[in-house]
Amino acid sequence: MRKFAAEKSRNLLAHREIFSSVLQHPTASLYSSSSHSKKSQLLLRFLNTTAAPNPSSSSESMASDYSSTPVKLDSINPKVLECEYAVRGEIVTLAQKLQEELKKNPGSHPFDEILYCNIGNPQSLGQQPITFFREVLALCDHPAILDKSETQGLFSADSIERAFQILDQIPGRATGAYSHSQGIKGLRDTIAAGIEARDGFPADPNDIFLTDGASPAVHMMMQLLTRSKNDGILCPIPQYPLYSASIALHGGTLVPYYLDEATGWGLEISDLKNQLETAKSKGISVRALVVINPGNPTGQVLAENNQQQIVDFCKKEGLVLLADEVYQENIYVPDKQFHSFKKVARSMGYGEKDISLVSFQSVSKGYYGECGKRGGYMEVTGFSPEIREQIYKVASVNLCSNISGQILASLIMNPPKVGDESYESYSAEKDAILSSLARRAKKLEEALNGLEGVTCNRAEGAMYLFPRIELPKKAIEAANAVNTAPDTFYARRLLNATGIVVVPGSGFGQVPGTWHFRCTILPQEDRIPAIISRLTEFHKGFMDEFRG
Amino acid sequence: MRKFAAEKSRNLLAHREIFSSVLQHPTASLYSSSSHSKKSQLLLRFLNTTAAPNPSSSSESMASDYSSTPVKLDSINPKVLECEYAVRGEIVTLAQKLQEELKKNPGSHPFDEILYCNIGNPQSLGQQPITFFREVLALCDHPAILDKSETQGLFSADSIERAFQILDQIPGRATGAYSHSQGIKGLRDTIAAGIEARDGFPADPNDIFLTDGASPAVHMMMQLLTRSKNDGILCPIPQYPLYSASIALHGGTLVPYYLDEATGWGLEISDLKNQLETAKSKGISVRALVVINPGNPTGQVLAENNQQQIVDFCKKEGLVLLADEVYQENIYVPDKQFHSFKKVARSMGYGEKDISLVSFQSVSKGYYGECGKRGGYMEVTGFSPEIREQIYKVASVNLCSNISGQILASLIMNPPKVGDESYESYSAEKDAILSSLARRAKKLEEALNGLEGVTCNRAEGAMYLFPRIELPKKAIEAANAVNTAPDTFYARRLLNATGIVVVPGSGFGQVPGTWHFRCTILPQEDRIPAIISRLTEFHKGFMDEFRG
Repeated sequence: MRKFAAEKSRNLLAHREIFSSVLQHPTASLYSSSSHSKKSQLLLRFLNTTAAPNPSSSSESMASDYSSTPVKLDSINPKVLECEYAVRGEIVTLAQKLQEELKKNPGSHPFDEILYCNIGNPQSLGQQPITFFREVLALCDHPAILDKSETQGLFSADSIERAFQILDQIPGRATGAYSHSQGIKGLRDTIAAGIEARDGFPADPNDIFLTDGASPAVHMMMQLLTRSKNDGILCPIPQYPLYSASIALHGGTLVPYYLDEATGWGLEISDLKNQLETAKSKGISVRALVVINPGNPTGQVLAENNQQQIVDFCKKEGLVLLADEVYQENIYVPDKQFHSFKKVARSMGYGEKDISLVSFQSVSKGYYGECGKRGGYMEVTGFSPEIREQIYKVASVNLCSNISGQILASLIMNPPKVGDESYESYSAEKDAILSSLARRAKKLEEALNGLEGVTCNRAEGAMYLFPRIELPKKAIEAANAVNTAPDTFYARRLLNATGIVVVPGSGFGQVPGTWHFRCTILPQEDRIPAIISRLTEFHKGFMDEFRG
Repeated sequence: MRKFAAEKSRNLLAHREIFSSVLQHPTASLYSSSSHSKKSQLLLRFLNTTAAPNPSSSSESMASDYSSTPVKLDSINPKVLECEYAVRGEIVTLAQKLQEELKKNPGSHPFDEILYCNIGNPQSLGQQPITFFREVLALCDHPAILDKSETQGLFSADSIERAFQILDQIPGRATGAYSHSQGIKGLRDTIAAGIEARDGFPADPNDIFLTDGASPAVHMMMQLLTRSKNDGILCPIPQYPLYSASIALHGGTLVPYYLDEATGWGLEISDLKNQLETAKSKGISVRALVVINPGNPTGQVLAENNQQQIVDFCKKEGLVLLADEVYQENIYVPDKQFHSFKKVARSMGYGEKDISLVSFQSVSKGYYGECGKRGGYMEVTGFSPEIREQIYKVASVNLCSNISGQILASLIMNPPKVGDESYESYSAEKDAILSSLARRAKKLEEALNGLEGVTCNRAEGAMYLFPRIELPKKAIEAANAVNTAPDTFYARRLLNATGIVVVPGSGFGQVPGTWHFRCTILPQEDRIPAIISRLTEFHKGFMDEFRG
């Protein structure tokens, strides 16, 4: 039922879609009169082909039942209508439906279970939490047991000690109280110390804003910077669709720059410059540059000299650098390492007052993968006290982020150290997760590259592969015939045949005329061979069916 | 320093303030040409008098240090500038400064500690969490101990059983995974059952959206309903400033209706009608009515027949009823009880498709007071599937609310029952908190009513008193002389003299020319006599100083 409703609303949207904020702008022939016109025409085509199929007459009758209620699709905020978030979009809705069917009628589909490879949600696929982190959280949730003798037998000594330390940092030891709107000061001290240890440059606890995951932090910055459609945010294409969704919700314009698939999703400063100039010439005031490093969905890790160029570009052009660094612990190749943009900027001699830089971090990613805890922070540097005050004010309207998430954010930035009782088990758990992720990334990448018409860059970091598929002409025609984007058509067929859930590339943006999907590397390692064989078998069948 | 920055930004705002969304509207002579013109002229005066004092030259030099950074006050989203949230505003910033001074130099002020009566944050003032709830949260955070023998000695049997039940409701028992964007289905089942038990009418788990506290839920609805300044939301005056802040952030218009202080903050349907008609005549499309019951900051509990009138009004006028019911457990007088608006509407025969109603609930209030957990939900009824789909989409952009908050929301709607091992201790803890709050409310109300020039309605519910102060003419002149609202002037003096933090009435809105403050009833009971004597002594001195 929900699916039909979704389809109806999508049809009402007609040509509005993920990039509508660009395309609907009054001045925005932006991407049809420039040197990028081919891309943009194809972008338009992308918009048309993602419109959903089969407007069902049943949805008409459903809507009419609610005819006496006041809120209609044409009377809600159009920015909400415009917003799309493919990671939990149509394919996932279909997956949930199949899952319910499997529960009711086991054997009703050619697979036993749905395998969610659509989202970076490690623990949903069996990854176990880091024991030390959970010990500390449990003790902080129920401090009454801290002094009990049985607790010694159940919890590590350093988790008990850490819980005491944290409670001492919380006014009144009240883990059930609202905190300072930026988060508990003592926890921010710990996080700042962790950043200093990571970067080798000072960090100020007053620059830290603890948030319910990185997403609310991104929203806060978009809300701050966006006055109207005339304000633009430079975003990579492909991008994590939180950015396009947030820009749409706040009424701004997404200014795309393309990562170059042929050079391992390279970021070319010349492309940034071109896109910036094109946007400017159309009256767009570009406010910020989003960089996701390691990349999502693309998995590349930026080289330090590339980061220096980006910093210089932002400095020169007066752009805020919004650095999505939530995958900073997820690096899988020996020839790459993570450098925070703040470290890079400081190494270049740029101080607090030289460059405006926001770094986003989350407890949901890394080796910890604590998505359900909704913890994270942003480190806000290079903004005047008046602007900082405005950010604080917006944070204060929602009072504070959840305290367990705050505690966890402090733990990931200050994990057990050599000599602590938990250090050995902590290290073993961490290393096992990261090395297994590296092996899974490699195996899946090799398997994908072995498929007909598929090419896939290696995942240097993050949690995803983003293979490109050369779809046969007949498959594209079949997709067009049901008014579906070809990559969505492929992903739907894959799901129906195998139970594997991936996200079509059109949800992230891609060079028009190319087709991709995003697949996480998160299924447990012993499941990977079966996944590869199911995927391979499906793909062969699909290509056989549609080969010209 | 932060204070100076805040003042500078406020001065830049000039006449923009809490009701600016009304006043700046192109068509909005709304409140100066109507029968309510006296109120509105005074409202304008309120706007002017809340402008902050002493634009400091030091803020000029601070700002210039950041001259090479790109983001300036005049280049950020003006809706962010407009937004105000007095509960964590100027007085609280001053309180934090004094607290730091006390820490560095004990004895530097005529009090030992800051007493935060500005915010409904019970555990920050020593209220203890309900043991059963924290046991379950701790066990869900660290399920590895569930099977250990020591756990039996540390945790109640029913908390262990409940933790197992909850884990069984979570796919893969993964408390560290993102959940369904509306929240874990099994927990929504529990909440829906709790609503049914409370109301005696069916509740659907698919109507429940679990959120990080009630505030994000309110933002979601404001975001959905607000297209432009031409969309209005009817809000009580005085109101909890989340509403004015959220309306400002989403670019809508606050349409005020006044609660009648003389009749115990009564809600008159005739006033609602007048305000609605006036707004309509100015081109405002009024979308929704906010009702806070029990009231914040006003503490009244609506009578059922008054609620029926409100439901009929919304039905007739095609308004969404946004029912803030977060204080549903906080009732202190025997002659009043809580009725949810859904129960009232269903009792009147209005079904799902007859009225659009959103009820907000939170784990932060009630007897539980778990503010730091950021849990809550909204029950969304009377919206078509297409609209529901849009709400779901916006929820999905932020993935999900935190799982501990979700679990806690299920616990408060399904606490221990007679026969459970924890029932006795749970009941004792709950009753002790609620009966103590009732006594505190009564004592503080009586004390306030004993002060010269102060009148205070009883707190029938919620967590606040909102006394009115007849300020001497000289005090008002002294406040005007430093460009401060008289009630802010009073609150600042109170803080500097006693360490007691209250929120000036101007932060909530009040009939212009009247002055109030909001004071929580949350300090622990043994502290109340000292607070009363400090407040009484201060008030006498203040009145003596300014008496004509």
